[in-house]
Amino acid sequence: MSGYRVVGDWGTSRLRLFRIVDGAAVERVVGPGIAGLATTPADALRAGLADWRREGEPDMIRLCGMVGSRNGWLETPYVECPATASAWRAGAAAIDLDGIPVTIMPGLAGTTPRNAPDVMRGEETQIFGAIAIDPALRRGRHLLALPGTHGKWVLVDEGCVMGFQTFLTGELFALLRDHSMLTRAASAGEANADEGEGFAAGLARSLDGDLLGSLFETRAAQLRAGRSAAWALEFLSGLIIGSEIAGALAAFAADRVGLIGDPALTARYAQALAAHGHATTAYDGDACALAGLTLLETIA
Amino acid sequence: MSGYRVVGDWGTSRLRLFRIVDGAAVERVVGPGIAGLATTPADALRAGLADWRREGEPDMIRLCGMVGSRNGWLETPYVECPATASAWRAGAAAIDLDGIPVTIMPGLAGTTPRNAPDVMRGEETQIFGAIAIDPALRRGRHLLALPGTHGKWVLVDEGCVMGFQTFLTGELFALLRDHSMLTRAASAGEANADEGEGFAAGLARSLDGDLLGSLFETRAAQLRAGRSAAWALEFLSGLIIGSEIAGALAAFAADRVGLIGDPALTARYAQALAAHGHATTAYDGDACALAGLTLLETIA
Repeated sequence: MSGYRVVGDWGTSRLRLFRIVDGAAVERVVGPGIAGLATTPADALRAGLADWRREGEPDMIRLCGMVGSRNGWLETPYVECPATASAWRAGAAAIDLDGIPVTIMPGLAGTTPRNAPDVMRGEETQIFGAIAIDPALRRGRHLLALPGTHGKWVLVDEGCVMGFQTFLTGELFALLRDHSMLTRAASAGEANADEGEGFAAGLARSLDGDLLGSLFETRAAQLRAGRSAAWALEFLSGLIIGSEIAGALAAFAADRVGLIGDPALTARYAQALAAHGHATTAYDGDACALAGLTLLETIA
Repeated sequence: MSGYRVVGDWGTSRLRLFRIVDGAAVERVVGPGIAGLATTPADALRAGLADWRREGEPDMIRLCGMVGSRNGWLETPYVECPATASAWRAGAAAIDLDGIPVTIMPGLAGTTPRNAPDVMRGEETQIFGAIAIDPALRRGRHLLALPGTHGKWVLVDEGCVMGFQTFLTGELFALLRDHSMLTRAASAGEANADEGEGFAAGLARSLDGDLLGSLFETRAAQLRAGRSAAWALEFLSGLIIGSEIAGALAAFAADRVGLIGDPALTARYAQALAAHGHATTAYDGDACALAGLTLLETIA
């Protein structure tokens, strides 16, 4: 085994490494996120690479994500928007692991359409990956959405990232699911036959434009309208995702939205966007991340 | 000691008992909330009353709050809105403690202005208490706000509770403060000189009407605009309180808002409502609760 590279996405909660041979990912390894390491980042990376290195050293390693944050391995300053792929690439930081060159890609800093400061680390790799995969994104203006813990909505113009806005969608959903009374079963032994209606009901409620004043319905509907806890969880998901979409569409005008992420999650967003009358194009999040880490040479 | 009554507010996280002599509270005792009892509710109440009972038994006990919920002591069905004070009083449930008559006041069930189901348990006592204290609330239409973990906005007409809406304000603030990265210091050793500007900045941001898309600014402003963690906590408070107020004022049209609660908290709401051009009248939350539990006879 020789002539291979390693690329990886090292986020808060997970490390994903890919072994690249002739431009294609041939193996992958998963490790701990940068936030909860028991060892140094270098030792954690050595552990992840151990099997591959037994048969030969990689030519280089390229990493993106929170590994480049203040609390990561090596702080990589944000690249300011508007940001082209080449400006992003030029902002990378260099370090080494036992003599192997390691490149850490920077995040992006920008402003929202309402002029608030905003930042990302990791999503920019998927965005530039999508631009590398789909030539259409290199021409004209496009709105991209990357659903997740901190969902990003991104305006791309001629392949350049102009600005973006973060929505706390996934984090808020998880906090309310795990730490509030909202979705805990309000009565025992109830049926879940209504589960399939919850998401659409939450989406419909989000159109009122009053997220904070609608959240409690998740519980009140169990107490007063006979809804199951399973319905409530779906209602909460629809309400929060719908609120993200309504907020984003008010901030960024666009007819079509490119969705980058896990296919099950982007399908949920496609359903919600269709309810707003918006067409979508889906890009697989893993493929975009890999493209961003390997196909950098194909975009200006 | 004889000829005394006991009234109390027994909520999820706290029991507050008052000894009433000649219509006035002369002593108070605090005990554990109904949600986390290690004993039966009856034994917890006995423990709270022990000192007073040594000198004589109370004539009666009247309790409000989550003690009447499905997971409380004795489930007291919700009284449906529109609800008068007399309908509320008629909905009380009777039980006894060692032969002492115990009355448990019901909560209210209603619908929001946008036709979602909603419930309250405990706040109705403060509302009917405010109506007992202030004769003006028994004539015409009034909008009352009870800020808190689950903030309630309540429409009162001729002393009757017509409907209400719950805002998850306090719970959301506490969840984000305690379980998210938003307000954790993004850099060490920073000054807090900007703390006083955070609340107003959060209120101003809430006017965008996009809570979910504005929460991340709490962190991004620390990373990119040199804001302190203390500023961020105030920004978060202003953003969430401002979102509650904007949502409530869109749902309930009113020029003046009656605020019921802890004076420090209602002052914060008065500041935010003044920014929206609304006058306020403040009612002390404890005084209203006590009035609701003791002055029932004075209102129809």
